Amino acid sequence: MHRQQRQRTAQLLEEAGLELALFSDFDSVRWLTGQNLSAPSLLLFERGNFTLLADEGSSEALNFGDEPGCAYVPIVGYTIQQPIDAPARLADALRELAADINLPPAKVGVEEKSLTLGIWQALLGELPGCEPLSLEGRLLPLRAVKTEEELARIREGFRLVTIGHDAGRKAVRLGQREIDVWTEVQTAVEREAGKWCQMGNDCIVGHRPANMSAAPLDYEIIANDSFILDLSVVVDGYWTDSCATYYAEQPTAQQVQMHKFVEEALAYAISLIRPGEITREVDDKVRSFMAAGGYEVYPHHTGHGIGLTGHEAPRIVPYNQEQFQEGNVIMLEPGIYIPGVTCIRLEDAFLVTADGAEPLSHHDKSLP
Amino acid sequence: MHRQQRQRTAQLLEEAGLELALFSDFDSVRWLTGQNLSAPSLLLFERGNFTLLADEGSSEALNFGDEPGCAYVPIVGYTIQQPIDAPARLADALRELAADINLPPAKVGVEEKSLTLGIWQALLGELPGCEPLSLEGRLLPLRAVKTEEELARIREGFRLVTIGHDAGRKAVRLGQREIDVWTEVQTAVEREAGKWCQMGNDCIVGHRPANMSAAPLDYEIIANDSFILDLSVVVDGYWTDSCATYYAEQPTAQQVQMHKFVEEALAYAISLIRPGEITREVDDKVRSFMAAGGYEVYPHHTGHGIGLTGHEAPRIVPYNQEQFQEGNVIMLEPGIYIPGVTCIRLEDAFLVTADGAEPLSHHDKSLP
Repeated sequence: MHRQQRQRTAQLLEEAGLELALFSDFDSVRWLTGQNLSAPSLLLFERGNFTLLADEGSSEALNFGDEPGCAYVPIVGYTIQQPIDAPARLADALRELAADINLPPAKVGVEEKSLTLGIWQALLGELPGCEPLSLEGRLLPLRAVKTEEELARIREGFRLVTIGHDAGRKAVRLGQREIDVWTEVQTAVEREAGKWCQMGNDCIVGHRPANMSAAPLDYEIIANDSFILDLSVVVDGYWTDSCATYYAEQPTAQQVQMHKFVEEALAYAISLIRPGEITREVDDKVRSFMAAGGYEVYPHHTGHGIGLTGHEAPRIVPYNQEQFQEGNVIMLEPGIYIPGVTCIRLEDAFLVTADGAEPLSHHDKSLP
Repeated sequence: MHRQQRQRTAQLLEEAGLELALFSDFDSVRWLTGQNLSAPSLLLFERGNFTLLADEGSSEALNFGDEPGCAYVPIVGYTIQQPIDAPARLADALRELAADINLPPAKVGVEEKSLTLGIWQALLGELPGCEPLSLEGRLLPLRAVKTEEELARIREGFRLVTIGHDAGRKAVRLGQREIDVWTEVQTAVEREAGKWCQMGNDCIVGHRPANMSAAPLDYEIIANDSFILDLSVVVDGYWTDSCATYYAEQPTAQQVQMHKFVEEALAYAISLIRPGEITREVDDKVRSFMAAGGYEVYPHHTGHGIGLTGHEAPRIVPYNQEQFQEGNVIMLEPGIYIPGVTCIRLEDAFLVTADGAEPLSHHDKSLP
């Protein structure tokens, strides 16, 4: 799995003149291997070859060793014979690997925001004179373009998202609490998946003082409430995202007007997406659309990429000059918030294609 | 909060001759502050004073700055004005703090298994010539002795554990799947708590090939099944743990015999606990008890401490020479496993007291 990812990375390292690199960022390791590992783990690059150091209990990691140019070094995890100490076992395994590396002192590519001092000292002990060269963040632009393997996982996630929203729409009723709605959503998704699923994000009644972004608490749904369900389901390490707004009863005239306007804002945002467009320009246009409608402009992002994390490149925010590229998976999520009164947000996911955007999320966001 | 923890740590640092230390292990930071923070965060110790660097969104962290000898430096988290980059913001904030430190080059206490190279380089840039002195693992023995503040959180966790087990016992019925039982447990706990709760661990039918430890899947409960529900609920960062064994129908004669024997093994284990006893000796005695009963001895720990993680000191395992101490919170969990046929495990939590062990878990572990 993820052979394309390793090829693109090997090319990046070659262009940087690096024969040796150590990936310690958990997301980098998962992206380069395609394995939904348990942390911590390391991936050592040496002249075109990738060696994964990860917990022996990871059945997926075994398969990685069968890929061309790849090897897997199992690390002792749970044991009753010695302390459980993954960082020490990783350092030991890295020392063994490094002892066999026959290179003059050189630059070693590192991710210094996740590489620990202990692991770096272990490497330096075997390769004295080596110096760290930062690769921090260098994989992020590569990660922003998804492969078919990644899209398959993401599409399965969105199938579960629809099931979660169907349950959420039914669960939003007068007298139910945010947490009651959430447990219905969670139960529907996990029963369908037949396993635990990591999930997020917001599950909020409109009359909450801060009604934009929050985990469910015991706020009860009251008359004329709106209800934001912003749902991510993580499948095989890949995130989804989505938002719909539901109503305790028939929405008020104001809510209907707001809901329809947010639908229009979302449709407008979608119409702007194509490869080559600048993310900050799309962000600016959608904010202007909200303002022109007479609404307070949402203080959050207009959208963001998703992948191995819930928020990654390309961010659709005021500072970002990145262009959209074919293969990006992005969220668009305009919203209107009247604190303590009502909140409306609608969010969909898209694959950026050669000439526009293909919907990936399919949950029902319509007015009742 | 957690003033005792900081006093004990300050004494440890004084004895080590350290005027400066940087805690980067997330559990160390949470234990030293008493705050259930979001990662990443850092805690800088300088001549008796503690400065917390943590996300500005953490309302608890604000209170920390009001404690005597304590300060709080908020770190920009989510923003649409620049990239979200906690490691870079932490490094910037640490540089600012370090620039004001007036110390000759000296040893700096560090936790090298969590301290990143980037943060270390930031510190070294302001305090050239400083050298790292490992404090790795030095707080673990201190963490093993709980304070009243910690026990209050743990007791609340066990109240929720009982609610989860009550739901689990009812949910174990012919034709239900492991994941169906789990969603009932999870829903009961979260509705009672009125919020999301981190939970684990095992939820397994007896006829699974590997029936000792696993997350719930879609295995269906069949005739004569036993069912292990091993439940942790995390409250304000503090873990609990527990296990009961349920039955799809009336247990078979063999299951009744096994269940009663495990009850006896658990009672025997409890009888061995008091301050000063050696953990490995307790482990050995309980294993011998199982073997003397004619059962295969479980391959896992006899028990373990809990706290900010699900498994911490003191481990009750064959290599551990630590003594039990008053204030330890420990689990005891003998079990019998016949792979693919049936599995029985019973687990309770105890506070080690001056003359024995006070039960902290109160779920029903009896035969039906």
